[in-house]
Amino acid sequence: MIAVDWGTSSFRAYRLDADGSVLEQRSAAAGLLACGGVFEPVLTEQLSGWPDELIVMAGMIGSRSGWHEVPYVACPAGLGDIAAGMSEVAASSLPGRRIFIAPGLSHRPAGGAPEVMRGEEAQLLGLLGELRGGGPHTVCLPGTHSKWASVNEGRISAFHTAMTGELYAVLQQHSLLGALMDREAGTSVHDAPAFELGVQTSAAAGGLLNHLFSVRTRGLFGELTAAQLPSYLSGLLIGHELQGLAAGAERVHLIGSAALLSKYRSALALRGITAQAHGEALAARGLHQLAHVRALVA
Amino acid sequence: MIAVDWGTSSFRAYRLDADGSVLEQRSAAAGLLACGGVFEPVLTEQLSGWPDELIVMAGMIGSRSGWHEVPYVACPAGLGDIAAGMSEVAASSLPGRRIFIAPGLSHRPAGGAPEVMRGEEAQLLGLLGELRGGGPHTVCLPGTHSKWASVNEGRISAFHTAMTGELYAVLQQHSLLGALMDREAGTSVHDAPAFELGVQTSAAAGGLLNHLFSVRTRGLFGELTAAQLPSYLSGLLIGHELQGLAAGAERVHLIGSAALLSKYRSALALRGITAQAHGEALAARGLHQLAHVRALVA
Repeated sequence: MIAVDWGTSSFRAYRLDADGSVLEQRSAAAGLLACGGVFEPVLTEQLSGWPDELIVMAGMIGSRSGWHEVPYVACPAGLGDIAAGMSEVAASSLPGRRIFIAPGLSHRPAGGAPEVMRGEEAQLLGLLGELRGGGPHTVCLPGTHSKWASVNEGRISAFHTAMTGELYAVLQQHSLLGALMDREAGTSVHDAPAFELGVQTSAAAGGLLNHLFSVRTRGLFGELTAAQLPSYLSGLLIGHELQGLAAGAERVHLIGSAALLSKYRSALALRGITAQAHGEALAARGLHQLAHVRALVA
Repeated sequence: MIAVDWGTSSFRAYRLDADGSVLEQRSAAAGLLACGGVFEPVLTEQLSGWPDELIVMAGMIGSRSGWHEVPYVACPAGLGDIAAGMSEVAASSLPGRRIFIAPGLSHRPAGGAPEVMRGEEAQLLGLLGELRGGGPHTVCLPGTHSKWASVNEGRISAFHTAMTGELYAVLQQHSLLGALMDREAGTSVHDAPAFELGVQTSAAAGGLLNHLFSVRTRGLFGELTAAQLPSYLSGLLIGHELQGLAAGAERVHLIGSAALLSKYRSALALRGITAQAHGEALAARGLHQLAHVRALVA
């Protein structure tokens, strides 16, 4: 089968063997934003030469602005609940194939606003498969919109979102703070002392709106160079994201790209928390499990 | 004399009588960003027809990117300290005039990053003149970079900054959240229920990075319309700004434009705090007091 993680800005496909192991992997900048609302030709092109009958997809491709809107499944939810919510879509230019889209998850914390995810649930299912039950565990999937999930006994019981990555990008590109930075350094060089100062400052008095101003003043007073400011801002924001962590957490599972995980790992270490890293290919494993529960694969 | 509040994006001038009362007032979009580093011709043009010999200025005009850098005066600071830090500048195209620039203030909270202000100190001095000593008082000057000051017995003892206004603008114009909004409604219509929901949500569990995502989900789930989202975001951010308030605060002095003050007044009221509003022309009063202490006016 073929597993596809199709998000707003990226497209990732995995060709799997009968056990769900990854045989081949492809990725492209063919996210929803690049598709102009026409998805079938993109899928046909991206999967050329892969003849497998079954295609299971997750991500924003199942959203209102995607190929076909698949309703959210409410937490707590496990493999069976998510598998039951899958939708099959037709694709006339891909004859002889069966194409499914997995649902995203929704959650309503007591007294809070609604939460949603699309795509991360496939990675969480992959992780649950590796953990083989037990719990509770805390899982973080860092990114543009980081997701923090609580999993327990094979189910995703609750989650919340932090807009860390998007705020970082928007502030760096469009704010007065960004104008003070050596932006090129920020994208290529990780300055560990500046990052750590950011994480430490995030725990000081005053909230994030106040701490952001310190990007300006630490530059103005020569405490940090223009090349260090991007790492400092990153540390500030990730530090604030970690404040949502339950006080008793001792270990966090991280799922994501190596570069991002290393930042989160060092921020967690500053709080005395151990991180266990997992790669993004967990999504393929999760989608294979969904296919298995629906009896689409052996 | 003439009092000038010259900031990054705006220029405001006040012609004062011998008592410091405002006779005439001018404002222009002639802030530092519009001057291209050449200030004397702009000042000459803006003050045409006002023959007064003495000109006292405050704001970013005294910064490194302004006409002449005037060193910050450290808090705690009162009228005498700030007057002593004023610098006189020469202007060959304005013969027969004397031009002074007031210093900004700096503050270093214990264990925190440096804080700076330029321009707001003139408004605070004007307020201190009206309060005639006593204290302590809490003062908020809302804006792109809101300032919160503690004043006591005629001195500004401490202050901090919140980047509320800038974050609002950047998120509305450049983020995924902004793309969901009816931005035109946001700039013209204040939706009181959506604003109040934002203020209330800011006090819920999870930090600002999490709460920002609720702009998206409350729109997605139909809890708020696209036209309500700007007011909701404004309430969220102002609510977070107020979390920096000392728990015991019962009354806050607000200095700023009427439209902005009315938002802050309602957010404060939701926290049971009374607001007393003051107009921005307090800056002219503060600059007149500085001239008086320096014996430049009677």
